[in-house]
Amino acid sequence: MEERVLASYYIETPYPLEQAAEVMAGEQSTGTFVSVPGETEELKERHAARVVRIEPLDETDRPSLPHALAPAGSPKYRRANVTLSFPLHNFGPSLPNLLATIAGNLYELREFSGLRLTDLELPASFAAKYPGPRFGIAGTRKLAGVYERPIIGTIVKPSIGLPLTEYRTLVRELAEAGLDFVKDDELCADPPYAPFAERVRVVMEEIERAADKTGKKMMYAFNITGDIDEMRRNHDLVAKSGGTCVMVGINNVGFAAVAHLRSYTELPIHGHRNQWGAMTRCPQLGMSFTAYQKLCRLAGVDHLHTNGLNSKFAEPNEQVARSIRDCLTPFLGGYEVMPVLSSAQWAGTAIPSYEAAQSLDVIQVAGGGILAHPGGAAAGVRSMQQGWEAAVRGQTLEQYAAIHPELRQAIETFGKKG
Amino acid sequence: MEERVLASYYIETPYPLEQAAEVMAGEQSTGTFVSVPGETEELKERHAARVVRIEPLDETDRPSLPHALAPAGSPKYRRANVTLSFPLHNFGPSLPNLLATIAGNLYELREFSGLRLTDLELPASFAAKYPGPRFGIAGTRKLAGVYERPIIGTIVKPSIGLPLTEYRTLVRELAEAGLDFVKDDELCADPPYAPFAERVRVVMEEIERAADKTGKKMMYAFNITGDIDEMRRNHDLVAKSGGTCVMVGINNVGFAAVAHLRSYTELPIHGHRNQWGAMTRCPQLGMSFTAYQKLCRLAGVDHLHTNGLNSKFAEPNEQVARSIRDCLTPFLGGYEVMPVLSSAQWAGTAIPSYEAAQSLDVIQVAGGGILAHPGGAAAGVRSMQQGWEAAVRGQTLEQYAAIHPELRQAIETFGKKG
Repeated sequence: MEERVLASYYIETPYPLEQAAEVMAGEQSTGTFVSVPGETEELKERHAARVVRIEPLDETDRPSLPHALAPAGSPKYRRANVTLSFPLHNFGPSLPNLLATIAGNLYELREFSGLRLTDLELPASFAAKYPGPRFGIAGTRKLAGVYERPIIGTIVKPSIGLPLTEYRTLVRELAEAGLDFVKDDELCADPPYAPFAERVRVVMEEIERAADKTGKKMMYAFNITGDIDEMRRNHDLVAKSGGTCVMVGINNVGFAAVAHLRSYTELPIHGHRNQWGAMTRCPQLGMSFTAYQKLCRLAGVDHLHTNGLNSKFAEPNEQVARSIRDCLTPFLGGYEVMPVLSSAQWAGTAIPSYEAAQSLDVIQVAGGGILAHPGGAAAGVRSMQQGWEAAVRGQTLEQYAAIHPELRQAIETFGKKG
Repeated sequence: MEERVLASYYIETPYPLEQAAEVMAGEQSTGTFVSVPGETEELKERHAARVVRIEPLDETDRPSLPHALAPAGSPKYRRANVTLSFPLHNFGPSLPNLLATIAGNLYELREFSGLRLTDLELPASFAAKYPGPRFGIAGTRKLAGVYERPIIGTIVKPSIGLPLTEYRTLVRELAEAGLDFVKDDELCADPPYAPFAERVRVVMEEIERAADKTGKKMMYAFNITGDIDEMRRNHDLVAKSGGTCVMVGINNVGFAAVAHLRSYTELPIHGHRNQWGAMTRCPQLGMSFTAYQKLCRLAGVDHLHTNGLNSKFAEPNEQVARSIRDCLTPFLGGYEVMPVLSSAQWAGTAIPSYEAAQSLDVIQVAGGGILAHPGGAAAGVRSMQQGWEAAVRGQTLEQYAAIHPELRQAIETFGKKG
């Protein structure tokens, strides 16, 4: 049976929708601007992309993106959801070549004043080539030793400039405070002032020392973002040093680099999505998170950032909620990935997060919400856990805080941000 | 002396410009949403990004991007060019980590209704780590055997589905027609219907056979876009088979993958920029080509697509002209890259292209403009060369066509397209 890839788009065009959809299909398969010899009907039948669905939406007088070519007069710009189907044999199960096909030149076509990839469905051949997350939710929980509640974490702050001596003190404090998880800031990978190898040594010494005391080995996502060979060296160093997680800036390195990391990783891959805003913040361009997270899971990340509810970023809560649920929806029959909620998180974010996720399979990362808790980091951690306890029990924050002083303090300190 | 990276942005914000610029600098260096212990004044002094320039522009009543957080009332959205300066010791000379710093989370900040990276300046340490284009303009000319005029090329069309027997016939025709250069379509890398290794064998046989006759070895950019190890295997196969160029979809694989390819390449890297529209078509988001082409050259591409004048894509001619000039402007003291003009090109595009480039150091790629020439591909090639001859001599197309029948035929066939 012929395998096909389905790709869905949100488009805006001054042309009839059927015509516009055919332009997309032609550009990304057998079309040329002048008919050339060899472009036979048989070839088109076998290789052309097909328009499988057009769902008309609203219209507007004003093009969302500039430089669309419009018919004379005062055209209406029609919006629609369009789904195309591509024969897999046009490109084979290759992540980079999938992108060339389903995205590629489409964004530059002048027939469109808006074009956004909104979803994709892949045939089984992709699963045979890309094994996806090696650890996923179950594997991460096992390594972190955390079950039946979210994994609570923090980010090393300040993001930049902390000398290794202070790094050591901070990691010790966090590990002894009972934190499940710590991640490097995305700005800190292998900076000259705190070289990666030194950082790994210091951090792992403190994590192991705390584990000897507490019996719990804190998971630390070391930011190995770098060039291809650097990533491998850094991954190997983390694994050899007893670390349990590596982090990568997916868009900083690209999908091919992530898939390469997946091919040899011995540790869960914490996928950071910085630069993602450039791909998604214009509603009529780029890509939806629904499509993006599938590409990330295909490449093999075990954790994926979704933003948190009530964050300091522009993304509205409804989108964050949808992103979390996207991550928790099976893809290619599995490809478990753990959504990572971050930015301005504190104990009070647990209730809306639980409402959004309908699940405890999330990593929630708080910076100030833990480190700046007036009772110290350990109290910050407790307050975060208490927030989720309240959520699961269906209590309000205030109710639960009445008998949990760490939560009470968190409300007093961070509640205004709520 | 302390090395710093300068990054320039076009911003739109409802906040005072100074305040907005400080938010950018803080987010991408030492800032946190709640002050944390360790964030000392000394650390800030040493590691904070600095605002070095704010050039106010116009204002608008309507935010360009949704979900910006605005002060109460009816705020004005102020636009400005802003330049930030980052200490290199925050991240070191690493292309992926540079991206995390100068782009990173900026696009998601809710203080902005528009944010676009417009330019960057890098210190010498980057040149020490990333050698840049291995061949550049001079090396490409030498391999192609083309001097003192543009390199004229075509794209194998139809892009998809051509069986190898017809592939062979087409390549033979092109090589015998005296073409300088052929590139794979970006949709065709290693498809099951025409596996890469088979394609290389067939193409190189024909190129060598034609070279034996004509004395000229046509440069063919084989599309090796794929996963990291596949790219290496495919590059090695092309080099071993006597090929003289490899092509990669930069955005399909990511900058780290391109830099990795550069680390071992024996051949010029033809950089295709498909998906680029997603990063640039919204004027208030993403990245300008001026910034992008520097990143591509740092990663090491020898050729870079810029679109052509009067193309079928949305980009206006002024932007295409600027992109061509950007490529021809030295970067880090050199990093020569050859702009590639394509899409709806034909003999008549030479004159505006020469006006835009003020140089002959371009690759011009025509599909139908060569393959659909009524006199055949050889006549198509001649017509393209004649177009440039007219441009250099300062003649009009009509003048030069009066004594050049291939050009005359090209005008008659493609002239309506401009």
